Amino acid sequence: MKLVRLGDPGRERPAVIDDRGTIRDLSPLTPDIDGAFLAADGIARTRLALAESALPALEAEGLRFGPPVARPGTVVCIGQNYAAHAAESGSTPPTRPIIFLKPPNTVVGPYDEVEIPRGSTKTDWEVELAVVIGRTARYLDSPEQALEHVAGYTVSNDVSERDFQLEHSGGQWSKGKSCATFNPLGPYLVPADEVPDVQDLRLCSSVNGEPRQDSRTADMIFSVAQIVHDLSQYMVLEPGDVINTGTPQGVALSGRFPYLKPGDLMEIEIEGLGRQRQTLRSS
Amino acid sequence: MKLVRLGDPGRERPAVIDDRGTIRDLSPLTPDIDGAFLAADGIARTRLALAESALPALEAEGLRFGPPVARPGTVVCIGQNYAAHAAESGSTPPTRPIIFLKPPNTVVGPYDEVEIPRGSTKTDWEVELAVVIGRTARYLDSPEQALEHVAGYTVSNDVSERDFQLEHSGGQWSKGKSCATFNPLGPYLVPADEVPDVQDLRLCSSVNGEPRQDSRTADMIFSVAQIVHDLSQYMVLEPGDVINTGTPQGVALSGRFPYLKPGDLMEIEIEGLGRQRQTLRSS
Repeated sequence: MKLVRLGDPGRERPAVIDDRGTIRDLSPLTPDIDGAFLAADGIARTRLALAESALPALEAEGLRFGPPVARPGTVVCIGQNYAAHAAESGSTPPTRPIIFLKPPNTVVGPYDEVEIPRGSTKTDWEVELAVVIGRTARYLDSPEQALEHVAGYTVSNDVSERDFQLEHSGGQWSKGKSCATFNPLGPYLVPADEVPDVQDLRLCSSVNGEPRQDSRTADMIFSVAQIVHDLSQYMVLEPGDVINTGTPQGVALSGRFPYLKPGDLMEIEIEGLGRQRQTLRSS
Repeated sequence: MKLVRLGDPGRERPAVIDDRGTIRDLSPLTPDIDGAFLAADGIARTRLALAESALPALEAEGLRFGPPVARPGTVVCIGQNYAAHAAESGSTPPTRPIIFLKPPNTVVGPYDEVEIPRGSTKTDWEVELAVVIGRTARYLDSPEQALEHVAGYTVSNDVSERDFQLEHSGGQWSKGKSCATFNPLGPYLVPADEVPDVQDLRLCSSVNGEPRQDSRTADMIFSVAQIVHDLSQYMVLEPGDVINTGTPQGVALSGRFPYLKPGDLMEIEIEGLGRQRQTLRSS
């Protein structure tokens, strides 16, 4: 099954796509797919409700896909978590996870337009595996324990403005990661136990149909389990929080491809988790 | 008048201290002091309700002071915004505001205990003027226009772990700014129009009664107006968001003072905005 949120921005209703591909209304079970729902065994309860045929089919024709979780409390990003991307960014691979944050109001739906901010000349794409936290995680004992705190996975585009990121803020990256619409998320929240091996998924991106990134999560320097364990030593991860786990090589920052311009079409995809598609426009 | 939130963590009720010092219940007007309240002219409506004697006195004896605004959507911090602090940190003054973010779940009340995280040897204090946003700010035309988007001001302690900040995350600071309890806020939200000159306030800190920081907001490199204007070019600031505007010289990172240890008492104060007091304990 896949959890989705359908409807206009800020008015999305919760739904679930069952294993036959039928979209079913989840509002009999919860007002939203958010931290409270995930923390209260929402995924198990959804599965049970589907088994009991307790969720009515939903006429979803024409409805927008929103991000598959309500606005997170925190969006954490991992920097340079693929060795080849670290290299194309001019860096040596990190020895501990590098973190920075994005404002949660950057999160938009997977097919929403993405805005090129005013003054931007270097707007760039980043396909990333996103982790959605299901249980509060603090001072976890081991990476093995960490995965019990993950509700599921989705696709994230960690859109970045490279001048803002690298030149406008004394080397602190968040300024180039915070612009409106800079975090398309979705389309689906796939429960963690329905992803056979999260460290062996293909992830790729294209611009106007031309391939850009094409790697596998096997190439991560720090695995999802290591990331969640590490973060829990420095902060309290809460249900509904999102972790963008880093992007592989093949972004415009490498110098191999032009930056994005209005009218461009970005498409990003992760094996088993779905595909996003955004048109760029001027802000 | 001063807005406050009183009660146990997560269960604070809104209140206002009138000009005679009487604490009055604000719950007839709003369920909380949050972005929605501030955006809907909450401060003007509170003033009117006080003038009409419409708010009952509140028995506040023994009630905890929470942060004076509900959990923000985003907490933005400005780095190295006082020239002498930039110098003591070994940096040249920035030419544009440096930003980084803290997870909003770091925000606690002004008298709550602060935890020294596990593995920490360099937990440090930072007194800061905090700006609370009152109206959505995006692509503002000028610094002058920016102040219309500020609801009010409060005191913030941008607690920092210097090893985590500088050594554990490839130079990205957020890892040392994100630990539980690392952002005491309050005690009061003072309406912007009741602060005569926000760029001429004394701000100071002490540890165990010994002075540490003692400067004035006149020494900021970027004024509040410039900061809000600048941020609005890179992100959407929303009602209830908090901006920590940087800290002056006199922190432990300078090498002039020892870092914090369990049992220490931190006190920080800004002229006209009140005083915080936190005891340190091990996490």
